Amino acid sequence: MSITTNAIIQTDTENPSSLAWQTTSIADPQPGEALVRIHYAGVNRADTLQAQGHYPPPRGTTDIIGLEAAGVIEAPNGATRPDGSPWHPGDEVAVLLSGGGYSEYATVPEGQLLPIPAGYSLAEAASVVEVACTVWSNIMMTARLREGDTILFHGGGGGIGIFGIQLARALGATVAATAGSEEKLHVCRRYGADILINYKEENFAEILTEHGGADVILDIIGAKYLDRNITALAPDGHIVIIGMQGGVKGELNIAKLLNKRGNISATGLRYRDKEDKAHIVAETVRNVWPLLENGQITHHINRIMPIAEVAAAHKALLAGEVTGKIVLELPQS
Amino acid sequence: MSITTNAIIQTDTENPSSLAWQTTSIADPQPGEALVRIHYAGVNRADTLQAQGHYPPPRGTTDIIGLEAAGVIEAPNGATRPDGSPWHPGDEVAVLLSGGGYSEYATVPEGQLLPIPAGYSLAEAASVVEVACTVWSNIMMTARLREGDTILFHGGGGGIGIFGIQLARALGATVAATAGSEEKLHVCRRYGADILINYKEENFAEILTEHGGADVILDIIGAKYLDRNITALAPDGHIVIIGMQGGVKGELNIAKLLNKRGNISATGLRYRDKEDKAHIVAETVRNVWPLLENGQITHHINRIMPIAEVAAAHKALLAGEVTGKIVLELPQS
Repeated sequence: MSITTNAIIQTDTENPSSLAWQTTSIADPQPGEALVRIHYAGVNRADTLQAQGHYPPPRGTTDIIGLEAAGVIEAPNGATRPDGSPWHPGDEVAVLLSGGGYSEYATVPEGQLLPIPAGYSLAEAASVVEVACTVWSNIMMTARLREGDTILFHGGGGGIGIFGIQLARALGATVAATAGSEEKLHVCRRYGADILINYKEENFAEILTEHGGADVILDIIGAKYLDRNITALAPDGHIVIIGMQGGVKGELNIAKLLNKRGNISATGLRYRDKEDKAHIVAETVRNVWPLLENGQITHHINRIMPIAEVAAAHKALLAGEVTGKIVLELPQS
Repeated sequence: MSITTNAIIQTDTENPSSLAWQTTSIADPQPGEALVRIHYAGVNRADTLQAQGHYPPPRGTTDIIGLEAAGVIEAPNGATRPDGSPWHPGDEVAVLLSGGGYSEYATVPEGQLLPIPAGYSLAEAASVVEVACTVWSNIMMTARLREGDTILFHGGGGGIGIFGIQLARALGATVAATAGSEEKLHVCRRYGADILINYKEENFAEILTEHGGADVILDIIGAKYLDRNITALAPDGHIVIIGMQGGVKGELNIAKLLNKRGNISATGLRYRDKEDKAHIVAETVRNVWPLLENGQITHHINRIMPIAEVAAAHKALLAGEVTGKIVLELPQS
């Protein structure tokens, strides 16, 4: 058995632009997996990587692209909330996915169903799930940021940076951010960053060292920054690498790391098992949703595009000119 | 003001054998620092490194060598136990030191005073502190080993390995150990290791992979094993590097680490501040002392030598033929 759905299919795996709206099927929901009618899907850089063939879905996951979405539960199929209360047909939900968001229907394990933050639209909720779970799990569950700590975000003007700056600020941290233009640094400042570093003109490691070092570094650069990140680290600090835009292989000076008693983690959300994801989702809802609801973290949509224009949406994201999220709207026929 | 003491002084900093018993002075104890009359001092590899000029004491610490000892409190000077009860003159204690153990007298912050495990001699207690605090802090407080996990000890036949194998076994982990001879592997087996690897003949990374990977690796090799340790790691695993016998700089493949969601920490005990040390000591006494007292961990002294023979003691340790600890006895005149 399977569910028939319309979804974005890559008709030519060599061509990232060959994304077409077609009829296909997805696996039947298992007990504890809700069937969700998707209204909006958030667009992430990871989606563009998958279309380019660089970021395959975990084994057993649909090939349909899309890591986050929001919509309405069609069939809860026994899915319950963390407190044990049941989800009902018609309940609005945001969803964290291993894939399959660019689709009319998605099957979602109960641990990856999130309530809509109060005051949020479905489009806003659809596009905040991935960044919220990513930032919370990395800076809090992996690196255990504490009040009074200093945290450094590379790419402070990007989606993860802007969200992270606000979250870290709300948690009582001193926030440093790097970016490549004064305009982006201005954005970082507006969202609450205390220490602004133009990486094209300044040495972030020196500047952090002057400020006593970073207790946590959330890094999307990888190899190119490995040694400088260690220089920038405070004693007992933690570097969390979640991207490798600056390369995969770098020299690690273990003595230098040991002098700081430093920690390096390289993590991602997508390939975690569903127990892990459920734990992260529950912690994120518990800790981050109140900050979305009271406005301590603001979330900005750049544009909403029809799902049929997905190739154009990816192109816009890759052009790097977009501040805020691109959201795809699915037809509700 | 200062305290006059006899201690081991390095008369020629270029010559690790120029260790002589001489009269010197140490700083007066501050409030909350006990003055301890030392009876026995444990000998560690780190002591030999310090004598070779490679492991300087933390700023503000005496130049006198010696990281662990046991003796009798001469003046508690207000020092209390973690529960707030006072130490008294005449109380027997083991001590964790940043330096200064090879001395008739040492001043010791209250957080680094440990009770003698029931049934232990002062000589045994003097030589179990450093290894117990090192292994507990690294495998539990840093890497958070859990029951049912697999842990790999490199150098399983050494002091840290033998202690670690027993502790991990007592905690319900599956234990793997590498060593360079069948004789040493036999020792590892005797202390409870399940997976024995002769690193001269076998590929530890392959063998661990066959066993599902190591959740925790306690590593004393550093650069030479960096990449193979990542290969050997289980998903979400943690490599803790506490030695660099195989070099300081190695290539880190971040993508490979990210595929495992791996963590690398490089740590040490000596340069931590006294709050950190007090925390580690308290946890070690609470969790490890009962295992010493009930025999789940056995601790073996190889020989007790007079402090005047310290140069010979260091030579014996460096020759690598010693199983069990060397302990120095201080004259009680």
